[in-house]
Amino acid sequence: MTGRLIAFEGGEATGKSTQARLLAKRLGALLTFEPGATELGAHVRTLVLDSPDLALSPHAEALLMAADRAQHVAEVIRPALDAGTHVVTDRFIGSSLAYQGFGRHLGVDDVLALSLFATGGLQSDLTVLLTVSEDEARSRQASPSDRIEAEDADFHRRVLEGYRTLAEENPDQWVVIDGNRSVEEVAEAVYTAVQERLGV
Amino acid sequence: MTGRLIAFEGGEATGKSTQARLLAKRLGALLTFEPGATELGAHVRTLVLDSPDLALSPHAEALLMAADRAQHVAEVIRPALDAGTHVVTDRFIGSSLAYQGFGRHLGVDDVLALSLFATGGLQSDLTVLLTVSEDEARSRQASPSDRIEAEDADFHRRVLEGYRTLAEENPDQWVVIDGNRSVEEVAEAVYTAVQERLGV
Repeated sequence: MTGRLIAFEGGEATGKSTQARLLAKRLGALLTFEPGATELGAHVRTLVLDSPDLALSPHAEALLMAADRAQHVAEVIRPALDAGTHVVTDRFIGSSLAYQGFGRHLGVDDVLALSLFATGGLQSDLTVLLTVSEDEARSRQASPSDRIEAEDADFHRRVLEGYRTLAEENPDQWVVIDGNRSVEEVAEAVYTAVQERLGV
Repeated sequence: MTGRLIAFEGGEATGKSTQARLLAKRLGALLTFEPGATELGAHVRTLVLDSPDLALSPHAEALLMAADRAQHVAEVIRPALDAGTHVVTDRFIGSSLAYQGFGRHLGVDDVLALSLFATGGLQSDLTVLLTVSEDEARSRQASPSDRIEAEDADFHRRVLEGYRTLAEENPDQWVVIDGNRSVEEVAEAVYTAVQERLGV
Protein backbone atom coordinates (compact mmCIF):
# COMPACT_ATOMS: atom_id res chain seq x y z
CA MET A 1 0.00 0.00 0.00
CA THR A 2 1.30 3.39 -1.00
CA GLY A 3 1.25 6.14 1.62
CA ARG A 4 -0.88 9.24 1.20
CA LEU A 5 0.56 12.73 0.73
CA ILE A 6 -1.04 15.63 2.60
CA ALA A 7 0.14 19.20 2.00
CA PHE A 8 -0.46 22.24 4.18
CA GLU A 9 -0.77 25.58 2.42
CA GLY A 10 -1.48 29.17 3.38
CA GLY A 11 0.08 32.56 3.87
CA GLU A 12 2.56 33.41 6.57
CA ALA A 13 1.49 33.03 10.22
CA THR A 14 -1.50 30.82 9.48
CA GLY A 15 -0.27 27.99 11.70
CA LYS A 16 0.78 25.65 8.89
CA SER A 17 3.94 24.36 10.56
CA THR A 18 2.21 23.72 13.88
CA GLN A 19 -0.74 21.96 12.28
CA ALA A 20 1.48 19.91 9.95
CA ARG A 21 3.44 18.71 12.97
CA LEU A 22 0.33 17.82 14.95
CA LEU A 23 -1.29 15.95 12.06
CA ALA A 24 1.90 14.03 11.25
CA LYS A 25 2.18 12.95 14.89
CA ARG A 26 -1.45 11.82 14.99
CA LEU A 27 -1.14 9.85 11.74
CA GLY A 28 2.34 8.48 12.42
CA ALA A 29 3.29 10.19 9.17
CA LEU A 30 6.63 11.54 8.00
CA LEU A 31 6.75 15.31 8.56
CA THR A 32 8.61 17.37 5.98
CA PHE A 33 8.60 20.84 4.43
CA GLU A 34 9.52 23.04 1.45
CA PRO A 35 11.76 24.62 0.57
CA GLY A 36 14.89 23.21 2.12
CA ALA A 37 14.32 19.64 3.32
CA THR A 38 17.26 18.19 1.38
CA GLU A 39 20.88 19.27 1.19
CA LEU A 40 20.24 20.75 -2.27
CA GLY A 41 17.05 22.31 -0.97
CA ALA A 42 18.89 24.02 1.86
CA HIS A 43 21.15 25.68 -0.71
CA VAL A 44 18.14 26.67 -2.82
CA ARG A 45 16.34 28.05 0.23
CA THR A 46 19.33 30.23 1.04
CA LEU A 47 19.43 31.57 -2.50
CA VAL A 48 15.70 32.28 -2.78
CA LEU A 49 14.79 33.39 0.73
CA ASP A 50 17.90 34.47 2.55
CA SER A 51 19.98 36.31 -0.06
CA PRO A 52 18.22 39.68 -0.30
CA ASP A 53 21.01 41.24 -2.39
CA LEU A 54 21.09 38.43 -4.97
CA ALA A 55 19.43 39.41 -8.29
CA LEU A 56 16.74 36.82 -8.96
CA SER A 57 14.25 37.01 -11.82
CA PRO A 58 10.70 35.72 -11.20
CA HIS A 59 11.32 32.88 -13.65
CA ALA A 60 14.58 31.90 -11.95
CA GLU A 61 12.81 31.94 -8.58
CA ALA A 62 10.09 29.61 -9.89
CA LEU A 63 12.65 27.23 -11.39
CA LEU A 64 14.71 27.12 -8.19
CA MET A 65 11.60 26.30 -6.16
CA ALA A 66 10.81 23.52 -8.64
CA ALA A 67 14.38 22.20 -8.33
CA ASP A 68 13.95 22.05 -4.56
CA ARG A 69 10.71 20.13 -5.08
CA ALA A 70 12.25 17.68 -7.54
CA GLN A 71 14.97 16.74 -5.07
CA HIS A 72 12.49 16.65 -2.18
CA VAL A 73 10.25 14.20 -4.01
CA ALA A 74 13.12 12.02 -5.25
CA GLU A 75 14.98 11.86 -1.95
CA VAL A 76 12.29 12.14 0.74
CA ILE A 77 8.64 11.98 -0.34
CA ARG A 78 8.59 9.26 -2.99
CA PRO A 79 10.65 6.74 -0.99
CA ALA A 80 8.38 7.23 2.05
CA LEU A 81 5.16 6.87 0.03
CA ASP A 82 6.55 3.80 -1.73
CA ALA A 83 7.32 2.26 1.67
CA GLY A 84 3.68 2.78 2.69
CA THR A 85 4.34 5.74 4.97
CA HIS A 86 1.99 8.72 4.92
CA VAL A 87 3.75 12.05 4.36
CA VAL A 88 2.69 15.48 5.67
CA THR A 89 4.48 18.40 4.05
CA ASP A 90 4.49 22.04 5.12
CA ARG A 91 4.08 23.60 1.64
CA PHE A 92 4.11 21.84 -1.74
CA ILE A 93 2.91 22.58 -5.28
CA GLY A 94 0.17 24.93 -4.04
CA SER A 95 2.81 27.33 -2.72
CA SER A 96 4.39 27.66 -6.16
CA LEU A 97 0.99 28.22 -7.75
CA ALA A 98 0.06 30.89 -5.21
CA TYR A 99 3.41 32.67 -4.78
CA GLN A 100 4.95 32.38 -8.25
CA GLY A 101 1.82 31.76 -10.34
CA PHE A 102 -0.41 34.43 -8.76
CA GLY A 103 2.02 36.51 -6.67
CA ARG A 104 4.68 36.88 -9.39
CA HIS A 105 2.15 36.85 -12.27
CA LEU A 106 3.87 33.87 -13.94
CA GLY A 107 0.61 32.07 -14.62
CA VAL A 108 -0.78 29.02 -12.88
CA ASP A 109 -0.58 26.69 -15.88
CA ASP A 110 3.12 27.29 -16.55
CA VAL A 111 4.05 27.02 -12.89
CA LEU A 112 2.00 23.84 -12.51
CA ALA A 113 3.82 22.36 -15.50
CA LEU A 114 7.18 23.05 -13.80
CA SER A 115 5.98 21.34 -10.63
CA LEU A 116 4.63 18.30 -12.44
CA PHE A 117 7.95 17.99 -14.28
CA ALA A 118 9.69 18.24 -10.90
CA THR A 119 7.52 15.61 -9.18
CA GLY A 120 7.16 13.25 -12.13
CA GLY A 121 3.41 13.88 -11.96
CA LEU A 122 3.02 13.32 -8.21
CA GLN A 123 0.41 15.54 -6.58
CA SER A 124 -0.85 15.65 -3.02
CA ASP A 125 -3.83 13.45 -2.15
CA LEU A 126 -5.18 16.29 -0.05
CA THR A 127 -4.17 19.94 0.32
CA VAL A 128 -5.20 21.69 3.52
CA LEU A 129 -5.49 25.46 3.13
CA LEU A 130 -5.38 27.25 6.48
CA THR A 131 -6.94 30.70 6.44
CA VAL A 132 -6.80 33.40 9.10
CA SER A 133 -8.16 36.92 9.09
CA GLU A 134 -5.79 39.75 8.24
CA ASP A 135 -6.00 40.99 11.82
CA GLU A 136 -5.20 37.56 13.20
CA ALA A 137 -2.25 37.14 10.81
CA ARG A 138 -0.89 40.55 11.74
CA SER A 139 -1.18 39.79 15.45
CA ARG A 140 0.72 36.51 15.04
CA GLN A 141 3.44 37.60 12.65
CA ALA A 142 6.75 39.04 13.68
CA SER A 143 8.60 41.30 11.25
CA PRO A 144 9.21 39.81 7.79
CA SER A 145 11.98 37.27 8.04
CA ASP A 146 12.81 36.47 4.41
CA ARG A 147 12.76 37.88 0.89
CA ILE A 148 9.27 36.66 0.03
CA GLU A 149 7.68 37.63 3.34
CA ALA A 150 9.15 41.08 2.76
CA GLU A 151 7.19 41.57 -0.48
CA ASP A 152 4.54 44.30 -0.45
CA ALA A 153 0.88 44.02 0.56
CA ASP A 154 -0.33 43.69 -3.05
CA PHE A 155 1.87 40.66 -3.56
CA HIS A 156 0.54 38.96 -0.43
CA ARG A 157 -3.05 39.84 -1.39
CA ARG A 158 -2.54 38.14 -4.77
CA VAL A 159 -1.10 35.09 -2.99
CA LEU A 160 -4.09 34.77 -0.65
CA GLU A 161 -6.61 35.35 -3.44
CA GLY A 162 -4.69 32.79 -5.48
CA TYR A 163 -5.01 30.24 -2.69
CA ARG A 164 -8.75 30.85 -2.45
CA THR A 165 -9.12 30.45 -6.21
CA LEU A 166 -7.13 27.20 -6.22
CA ALA A 167 -9.25 25.78 -3.39
CA GLU A 168 -12.50 26.78 -5.08
CA GLU A 169 -11.49 25.36 -8.45
CA ASN A 170 -10.17 22.07 -7.05
CA PRO A 171 -12.65 21.09 -4.34
CA ASP A 172 -11.78 17.39 -4.60
CA GLN A 173 -8.12 18.02 -3.79
CA TRP A 174 -8.33 21.06 -1.49
CA VAL A 175 -10.02 21.62 1.86
CA VAL A 176 -10.19 25.04 3.52
CA ILE A 177 -9.86 25.13 7.30
CA ASP A 178 -10.63 28.23 9.34
CA GLY A 179 -7.47 28.94 11.31
CA ASN A 180 -8.98 31.67 13.50
CA ARG A 181 -9.33 29.31 16.42
CA SER A 182 -7.22 27.68 19.08
CA VAL A 183 -4.48 25.29 17.97
CA GLU A 184 -6.47 22.37 19.37
CA GLU A 185 -9.69 23.31 17.59
CA VAL A 186 -7.90 23.74 14.26
CA ALA A 187 -6.07 20.44 14.73
CA GLU A 188 -9.37 18.66 15.33
CA ALA A 189 -10.92 20.23 12.22
CA VAL A 190 -7.89 19.20 10.15
CA TYR A 191 -7.96 15.63 11.45
CA THR A 192 -11.69 15.31 10.79
CA ALA A 193 -11.24 16.58 7.22
CA VAL A 194 -8.37 14.16 6.58
CA GLN A 195 -10.42 11.23 7.89
CA GLU A 196 -13.41 12.18 5.77
CA ARG A 197 -11.42 12.75 2.61
CA LEU A 198 -8.77 10.05 2.79
CA GLY A 199 -10.02 7.60 5.39
CA VAL A 200 -6.65 7.55 7.13
CA MET B 1 17.52 47.13 -34.16
CA THR B 2 17.64 44.12 -31.89
CA GLY B 3 20.94 42.27 -31.65
CA ARG B 4 21.28 38.66 -32.79
CA LEU B 5 21.95 35.74 -30.46
CA ILE B 6 24.46 33.10 -31.53
CA ALA B 7 25.02 30.00 -29.40
CA PHE B 8 27.94 27.59 -29.54
CA GLU B 9 27.22 23.96 -28.70
CA GLY B 10 29.13 20.70 -28.61
CA GLY B 11 30.70 18.14 -26.33
CA GLU B 12 33.71 18.79 -24.17
CA ALA B 13 37.00 19.78 -25.86
CA THR B 14 35.42 20.75 -29.16
CA GLY B 15 36.83 24.28 -29.08
CA LYS B 16 33.53 26.02 -28.23
CA SER B 17 34.98 28.54 -25.81
CA THR B 18 37.82 29.51 -28.13
CA GLN B 19 35.56 29.86 -31.14
CA ALA B 20 32.92 31.78 -29.20
CA ARG B 21 35.59 34.24 -28.10
CA LEU B 22 36.99 34.67 -31.61
CA LEU B 23 33.57 35.18 -33.17
CA ALA B 24 32.48 37.66 -30.50
CA LYS B 25 35.65 39.67 -31.08
CA ARG B 26 35.15 39.69 -34.85
CA LEU B 27 31.49 40.76 -34.54
CA GLY B 28 32.01 43.20 -31.68
CA ALA B 29 29.47 41.06 -29.81
CA LEU B 30 29.00 40.50 -26.11
CA LEU B 31 30.65 37.20 -25.12
CA THR B 32 28.95 35.17 -22.41
CA PHE B 33 28.47 31.57 -21.29
CA GLU B 34 26.35 29.04 -19.39
CA PRO B 35 26.14 28.01 -16.71
CA GLY B 36 27.46 30.63 -14.33
CA ALA B 37 27.52 34.05 -15.99
CA THR B 38 25.46 35.75 -13.24
CA GLU B 39 25.88 35.73 -9.48
CA LEU B 40 22.96 33.31 -9.18
CA GLY B 41 24.41 31.28 -12.03
CA ALA B 42 27.75 30.96 -10.27
CA HIS B 43 25.95 29.43 -7.28
CA VAL B 44 24.00 27.09 -9.57
CA ARG B 45 27.17 26.08 -11.41
CA THR B 46 28.82 25.16 -8.12
CA LEU B 47 25.82 23.03 -7.12
CA VAL B 48 25.48 21.22 -10.45
CA LEU B 49 29.08 20.83 -11.59
CA ASP B 50 31.37 21.23 -8.62
CA SER B 51 29.58 19.47 -5.75
CA PRO B 52 30.19 15.79 -6.53
CA ASP B 53 28.86 14.62 -3.15
CA LEU B 54 25.58 16.57 -3.39
CA ALA B 55 22.60 14.33 -4.20
CA LEU B 56 20.99 15.75 -7.34
CA SER B 57 18.11 14.10 -9.21
CA PRO B 58 18.07 14.44 -13.02
CA HIS B 59 14.93 16.59 -12.78
CA ALA B 60 16.53 18.88 -10.18
CA GLU B 61 19.62 19.20 -12.39
CA ALA B 62 17.50 20.23 -15.39
CA LEU B 63 15.55 22.76 -13.33
CA LEU B 64 18.73 24.29 -11.89
CA MET B 65 20.19 24.67 -15.37
CA ALA B 66 16.96 26.37 -16.46
CA ALA B 67 17.14 28.70 -13.44
CA ASP B 68 20.67 29.68 -14.47
CA ARG B 69 19.35 30.38 -17.99
CA ALA B 70 16.42 32.46 -16.76
CA GLN B 71 18.71 34.74 -14.79
CA HIS B 72 21.25 34.85 -17.63
CA VAL B 73 18.62 36.00 -20.11
CA ALA B 74 17.02 38.51 -17.74
CA GLU B 75 20.26 40.04 -16.51
CA VAL B 76 22.70 39.71 -19.43
CA ILE B 77 21.34 38.52 -22.78
CA ARG B 78 18.01 40.33 -23.11
CA PRO B 79 19.35 43.77 -22.11
CA ALA B 80 22.22 43.43 -24.62
CA LEU B 81 19.94 42.31 -27.46
CA ASP B 82 17.48 45.08 -26.66
CA ALA B 83 20.33 47.59 -26.85
CA GLY B 84 21.16 46.32 -30.35
CA THR B 85 24.26 44.38 -29.31
CA HIS B 86 24.90 40.95 -30.78
CA VAL B 87 25.46 38.23 -28.17
CA VAL B 88 27.63 35.11 -28.49
CA THR B 89 27.07 32.51 -25.78
CA ASP B 90 29.17 29.47 -25.02
CA ARG B 91 26.26 26.98 -24.47
CA PHE B 92 22.54 27.74 -24.36
CA ILE B 93 19.27 25.81 -24.77
CA GLY B 94 20.95 23.18 -26.96
CA SER B 95 23.10 22.06 -24.03
CA SER B 96 20.04 21.34 -21.91
CA LEU B 97 18.41 19.42 -24.74
CA ALA B 98 21.55 17.35 -25.34
CA TYR B 99 22.74 16.79 -21.76
CA GLN B 100 19.47 16.60 -19.83
CA GLY B 101 17.04 15.72 -22.64
CA PHE B 102 19.15 13.03 -24.33
CA GLY B 103 21.94 12.36 -21.80
CA ARG B 104 19.67 12.09 -18.74
CA HIS B 105 16.73 10.65 -20.72
CA LEU B 106 14.38 13.44 -19.60
CA GLY B 107 12.95 13.98 -23.07
CA VAL B 108 13.63 16.85 -25.44
CA ASP B 109 10.10 18.27 -25.39
CA ASP B 110 9.91 18.60 -21.60
CA VAL B 111 13.40 20.08 -21.34
CA LEU B 112 12.69 22.51 -24.18
CA ALA B 113 9.53 23.63 -22.35
CA LEU B 114 11.62 24.41 -19.24
CA SER B 115 14.06 26.45 -21.32
CA LEU B 116 11.33 28.40 -23.10
CA PHE B 117 9.74 29.18 -19.73
CA ALA B 118 13.18 30.32 -18.55
CA THR B 119 13.88 32.55 -21.53
CA GLY B 120 10.35 33.88 -22.04
CA GLY B 121 10.41 32.25 -25.48
CA LEU B 122 13.79 33.62 -26.56
CA GLN B 123 15.79 31.23 -28.75
CA SER B 124 19.13 31.68 -30.48
CA ASP B 125 19.08 33.07 -34.00
CA LEU B 126 21.80 30.60 -34.90
CA THR B 127 23.30 27.63 -33.06
CA VAL B 128 26.78 26.53 -34.11
CA LEU B 129 27.48 22.88 -33.35
CA LEU B 130 31.20 22.13 -33.29
CA THR B 131 32.07 18.50 -33.89
CA VAL B 132 35.39 16.75 -33.48
CA SER B 133 36.31 13.09 -33.88
CA GLU B 134 36.52 10.96 -30.77
CA ASP B 135 40.28 10.67 -31.21
CA GLU B 136 40.66 14.44 -31.52
CA ALA B 137 38.48 15.07 -28.45
CA ARG B 138 40.49 12.56 -26.43
CA SER B 139 43.77 14.14 -27.47
CA ARG B 140 42.57 17.61 -26.42
CA GLN B 141 40.83 16.76 -23.20
CA ALA B 142 42.47 16.66 -19.80
CA SER B 143 40.94 14.48 -17.10
CA PRO B 144 37.25 15.13 -16.37
CA SER B 145 36.97 18.34 -14.39
CA ASP B 146 33.34 18.38 -13.26
CA ARG B 147 30.38 16.15 -12.39
CA ILE B 148 28.93 16.05 -15.90
CA GLU B 149 32.25 15.55 -17.67
CA ALA B 150 32.83 12.64 -15.30
CA GLU B 151 29.73 10.78 -16.55
CA ASP B 152 30.33 7.51 -18.36
CA ALA B 153 30.94 6.98 -22.09
CA ASP B 154 27.31 5.98 -22.77
CA PHE B 155 26.11 9.28 -21.37
CA HIS B 156 28.50 11.27 -23.55
CA ARG B 157 27.55 9.18 -26.60
CA ARG B 158 23.86 10.02 -26.03
CA VAL B 159 24.79 13.71 -25.72
CA LEU B 160 26.71 13.73 -29.01
CA GLU B 161 24.02 11.75 -30.84
CA GLY B 162 21.48 14.14 -29.36
CA TYR B 163 23.37 17.12 -30.74
CA ARG B 164 23.49 15.53 -34.20
CA THR B 165 19.75 14.83 -34.05
CA LEU B 166 18.95 18.38 -33.01
CA ALA B 167 21.07 19.82 -35.82
CA GLU B 168 19.50 17.50 -38.40
CA GLU B 169 15.94 18.25 -37.27
CA ASN B 170 16.44 22.04 -37.09
CA PRO B 171 18.55 22.90 -40.14
CA ASP B 172 17.30 26.50 -40.21
CA GLN B 173 18.52 27.18 -36.69
CA TRP B 174 21.59 24.92 -36.46
CA VAL B 175 24.80 24.77 -38.45
CA VAL B 176 27.38 22.01 -37.99
CA ILE B 177 31.04 23.00 -38.25
CA ASP B 178 33.84 20.45 -38.51
CA GLY B 179 36.17 21.22 -35.62
CA ASN B 180 38.94 18.82 -36.71
CA ARG B 181 41.00 21.66 -38.10
CA SER B 182 43.23 24.47 -36.91
CA VAL B 183 41.69 27.16 -34.73
CA GLU B 184 42.01 29.65 -37.60
CA GLU B 185 40.34 27.39 -40.15
CA VAL B 186 37.44 26.65 -37.82
CA ALA B 187 37.05 30.34 -36.99
CA GLU B 188 36.86 31.18 -40.69
CA ALA B 189 34.23 28.49 -41.29
CA VAL B 190 32.19 29.77 -38.34
CA TYR B 191 32.37 33.37 -39.52
CA THR B 192 31.38 32.41 -43.06
CA ALA B 193 28.38 30.46 -41.75
CA VAL B 194 27.27 33.36 -39.53
CA GLN B 195 27.51 35.80 -42.43
CA GLU B 196 25.55 33.50 -44.73
CA ARG B 197 22.85 32.75 -42.18
CA LEU B 198 22.44 36.05 -40.38
CA GLY B 199 24.09 38.62 -42.59
CA VAL B 200 26.00 40.09 -39.69
